[in-house]
Formats: sequence, structure tokens, C-alpha cells
Amino acid sequence: MAVYTDVTDEELHAFVAQYDIGSVLAFKGIAEGVENSNFLLHTEAGYFILTLYEKRVNPAELPYFIGLMEHLAAAGISCPTPLANLDSETLGTLAGKPAAICTFLNGMSVRRAKAVHCQGLGNAMAEMHLAGADFTMHRKNALTVDGWRPLFDLSQDRADEVCHGLAAEIERELTVLEERWPRDLPVGEIHADLFTDNVFFLGEELSGIIDFYFACTDAFAYDVAICLNAWCFEADDSFNVTKARALLKGYSSVRPFTAAEFEALPLLARGSALRFLLTRLYDWLSVPEGALVTPKDPMEYLKKLRFHRHVTSARDYGLALGDVVA
Amino acid sequence: MAVYTDVTDEELHAFVAQYDIGSVLAFKGIAEGVENSNFLLHTEAGYFILTLYEKRVNPAELPYFIGLMEHLAAAGISCPTPLANLDSETLGTLAGKPAAICTFLNGMSVRRAKAVHCQGLGNAMAEMHLAGADFTMHRKNALTVDGWRPLFDLSQDRADEVCHGLAAEIERELTVLEERWPRDLPVGEIHADLFTDNVFFLGEELSGIIDFYFACTDAFAYDVAICLNAWCFEADDSFNVTKARALLKGYSSVRPFTAAEFEALPLLARGSALRFLLTRLYDWLSVPEGALVTPKDPMEYLKKLRFHRHVTSARDYGLALGDVVA
Repeated sequence: MAVYTDVTDEELHAFVAQYDIGSVLAFKGIAEGVENSNFLLHTEAGYFILTLYEKRVNPAELPYFIGLMEHLAAAGISCPTPLANLDSETLGTLAGKPAAICTFLNGMSVRRAKAVHCQGLGNAMAEMHLAGADFTMHRKNALTVDGWRPLFDLSQDRADEVCHGLAAEIERELTVLEERWPRDLPVGEIHADLFTDNVFFLGEELSGIIDFYFACTDAFAYDVAICLNAWCFEADDSFNVTKARALLKGYSSVRPFTAAEFEALPLLARGSALRFLLTRLYDWLSVPEGALVTPKDPMEYLKKLRFHRHVTSARDYGLALGDVVA
Repeated sequence: MAVYTDVTDEELHAFVAQYDIGSVLAFKGIAEGVENSNFLLHTEAGYFILTLYEKRVNPAELPYFIGLMEHLAAAGISCPTPLANLDSETLGTLAGKPAAICTFLNGMSVRRAKAVHCQGLGNAMAEMHLAGADFTMHRKNALTVDGWRPLFDLSQDRADEVCHGLAAEIERELTVLEERWPRDLPVGEIHADLFTDNVFFLGEELSGIIDFYFACTDAFAYDVAICLNAWCFEADDSFNVTKARALLKGYSSVRPFTAAEFEALPLLARGSALRFLLTRLYDWLSVPEGALVTPKDPMEYLKKLRFHRHVTSARDYGLALGDVVA
């Protein structure tokens, strides 16, 4: 839930007047997105989402995020489409903060994904990867292997408060991943945060992907690995191979994996599990005493990491090499 | 901001299927209402607000609140109109809680009301009072004079932590109000919480009134007194007689005051100021250490109470008896 900034009527009317969408009929804060303030904006032209970019998003990176959404939407990917104002700008300023108006996307995130949702996700992710190929801007992934040790340094001393032996286990894992991390996989624009919150469905049909504020230029297969973690484990932390198979099959039916990608998947899945373990661990240890918001449990990702460590081949994710590679 | 209850897809689809509004296209928690969880509901039939009634609302009283909105809407008052489901029920159950779907009301609350807004509010409030005349259900006002002393008892011992001498001042005020409170004014269904948050405008035109969950059967003029406090003071706590004049003129142009109402206004304004002082004082003293939500400052209403105590006649609110009485 997120509405961090108050917007006055005058500011709102002046901002919306820069667009060709008529006057404002309604404006309500909505509980969507964690990093930014999001509002439902109803104007004479219809319903939109207005986003105010709060301080966790670096303003210098907004042209990349907004540009990527514009590019993907133009290529037919269902994602929020930033509206251009009368000066052809998609990024403006409201209440002293960067702001954009995007199309309203129908659909809802699923709480309990079924295999059919995973397959749809695989399809859409592969289409998104292909559609991004001719996007000319790039952004380094700040949360890939090079960024993990500095992040770990912030929590190392207190990691064992969460689970005995955790610091040593992360240290060993980091060393392995730094040594073996694949550097030559096919690269492009990836979403990098395709959790269920960020994918909308209408029934079993995927209707859109939102929240591109972790998007970056990195290995396509790393995006797939993030989804294996985010979509293919059950509430009891057991791996659901049926969902993984559907995800990989859905992906490869649009963009077949290379053999190197297929081989790298277990390691990428370990890396992605470590990435979310590290950010959750940091948030867990940083939360102020008595805060109302409970941070997400880092242990969930430790269990996922351990699962992938015992995976001997991507075959354990439910598909043979020949099924998914071109 | 308020979304307290998680709703699963299955529950939502089953609930919406009871209505003739097509299937669900989007569902987002919105930051509106303090007592309940509110969601924007987009279906094939359009946009609606779905409200889940949380524990601060007594389920036994919901038929009154929902019935009043239905009645007022049917009489042409712009307020959320509860939709009847296929069994002709306006109140159902979702996620184990009472729930209703209402029409989506355009407009936004004003942060800095001008006199013209106050006049519109006066008009609409009087129309609402008239429209409620033939509503057959009634609800006692739990927060009028008889309820204040029990409420004060909960905070009396610690009232001086907020302001030295506050307990004694409230005690004196309560005694005066209990003695002089008018019992024979015209009575009907009042909103009883017409703060700026609960009144929508499109530009200078009032477009709707929301949040009827304090509505009750009480003196019409008490509703007016609540608005004098909520709309006619500036941020520096000074009284704005231009706004008060506009409010009273707006009201009386639709429903002229009786002489008794006009005479009683200063006392009713003191009472209404005390009512909000007492609830805010209670909330202020009850807030847990370290909570993220800051309760509203009770001192604002102490200052308003003191202002009204020095008002000698309703004439001080900007109008003479002859201007507003039938």
C-alpha cells in the first residue's frame, strides 16, 4: 500500500492540463506498488494511473524505465503505457516529484498461481524479452552478482540473529556464485522483479505486466530464474515441478533457450534466491522497533536457495534439454 | 488510507457473480475511508466502489446506513448508491465480512475550502435533510450530549497531559451543555461527519457526499454546527465568517432555519466542538508508543470550542435572524 505524497487540487489540475485528456473527474490513492505513490485518475478521457516517483527511485533512471514501458507497449506488450503530454514529454513534475500518467491496465494479480498462469507468464516474459531487443537504452543491474557482497556486508554481523549459521552459509554461497557466475549468456532488457504482484490476469489469461522499476539489462535467463523462485514454490516452500515445467515450456515456445542458458538455470536460480535473501535480510534487520509493516521473511529465500543448490541439472525443473532449446 | 482485509480471487468472483454487473476486470485497494476497506472495482458494467465493513462498524447498524444511502440516492441526492444483487439484497458477505458494492462517485474533496464550497455544502446538506424526511429507519446518535460524559471518563485522568487544566475545562463545559442542550429542535437523519474528506466537488460544484457511517437521527442544526467547525476555521484556527455566512445562506436557501435552531446554533457548535475534542483526546491518549499513524490533534477542537463559547449570538456567524429563518 503506498501513497506517500499529498497532491493539492491546484497542482493536480495544472499537471493534468498539460495532457490532452480533459479535466479531472476523480483522483484516489491506490494500494499498489511499494516504491512509489500511485493514484487512480479519472478524467473526461477515461481512467489512468498517475504515479509519483518517491525517493527510492533514482530520477536519473526514470527515462530508462518510462522509455522501456513506452517501447514495450508500442511493440504490443501489455504494460502501462506512459502518456505523452502536449510537449511530447512522458515524464513531468507534480508536488515537487517526478510523475507520469499511464494507461489503466485491467486484470488482477493471482494469489495462488496455477500452472496455466505460469505458462502464460513464460509466454509473456519471452515476448517482452524479444520486444526489448531494439530498445536503445540500457541500465546496469545493480542487484546482480557484483552487488551482492557489498549488500551482504551491511547485514553480515547480524545475519545469525535470523538463523544460526546464516552468515557462513551466505559467505560460502557468494564465493561459489562469484566464481561460477555465467558471463556470456544472451542479454537484453529484463523486468527483474516479476513477482505475482506485478503480473495481472483476467481469469487464466495474462492481461499485463506492471512495475518496471527494477528493469535492467541482464541475462534473459536470469529473469526466468527469478520467476522460478517467485512462482514455482508452494506456501510450504516445496518446489512445484508442474508449474516450473509450464513456465519453461511457455517461455521456450516463444523464445527457445540456448543450451548455455539451459545449463546455467540452476546457478541463476541460486543467484536469484540469494539476491532476494540478501535484500530481505537487510530489510528484516533494518526495520525499526514497533513498526507496523512486517518485512518479508528472508528464510523463505534461504529455503529456495538450498533447494536449488541440490538441483543437479535444469532437467530437475521438469524439462529435458531438447524440449526447450532451439 | 485503508485496506485491512485481503480478498482472494475466488471470493471476489463469487461475490461479484451475485450481481448483474458482468465479470471483474480490475480490483484495487483505495486510500479512502478510515473505518472500512474500500476497493475500486472495475467490471464489464463499469467502475464501482466495493466496501468491506471492518470491526469498527456494528453490523446491526449497516441496514440503517445502507438503507439511508439508498433512500437518499433515490431522492436525487448524490451519494454512493448501493447496488442490489440478484436476490435484491444490498448487503452481502465477502471474506467473512459484511460488504456492499456502490456506484463510483466522481469528484474530489477540497483541501482548502472556499466560501463557494461552503455554500454548496450548505445547499446539499439541506437537500439531504429534506430528502431523509420520509426515511423510516432511525438510529440514535451515540456521540451526542448523553454520550460525552462516559467518553470523557475514559480520558479525564490523563487529559492534563495534553494541556494543563483541560480536564477541568471539559468538566465545566460538559456541565453547561448537559444543562442547556436543546431537546426540541427539528430532528431527522443527519450525516454527523461532514468533514471535507467526505464531500466531493468538481471544481466549485458539489458532486457528492460519502461515508455515511456516523449518520444518525438527531437535530438538523447539529449537522450544520458540525460543518461550522469542520469548514469555517482557517489553518491558524481563526474563524472565517465569510465561509460561515456562505454555509448558513446556502443551507437556509433550501431549508430555512426555525428561530429556535438559529438561537441554538452557538450552543450546538460548542457541543459539536466538544464531541470531536473528546474523541480526538481519547484517540490521542490511546495511540500506542511508536505507532506510525499520528492521531488528529485534540487542541484544534479545544480552540474551536473556546471560540464558540465567546459567541453571543448566531449573528456572529455572519447572518441576521431574518436572513435565514422562514
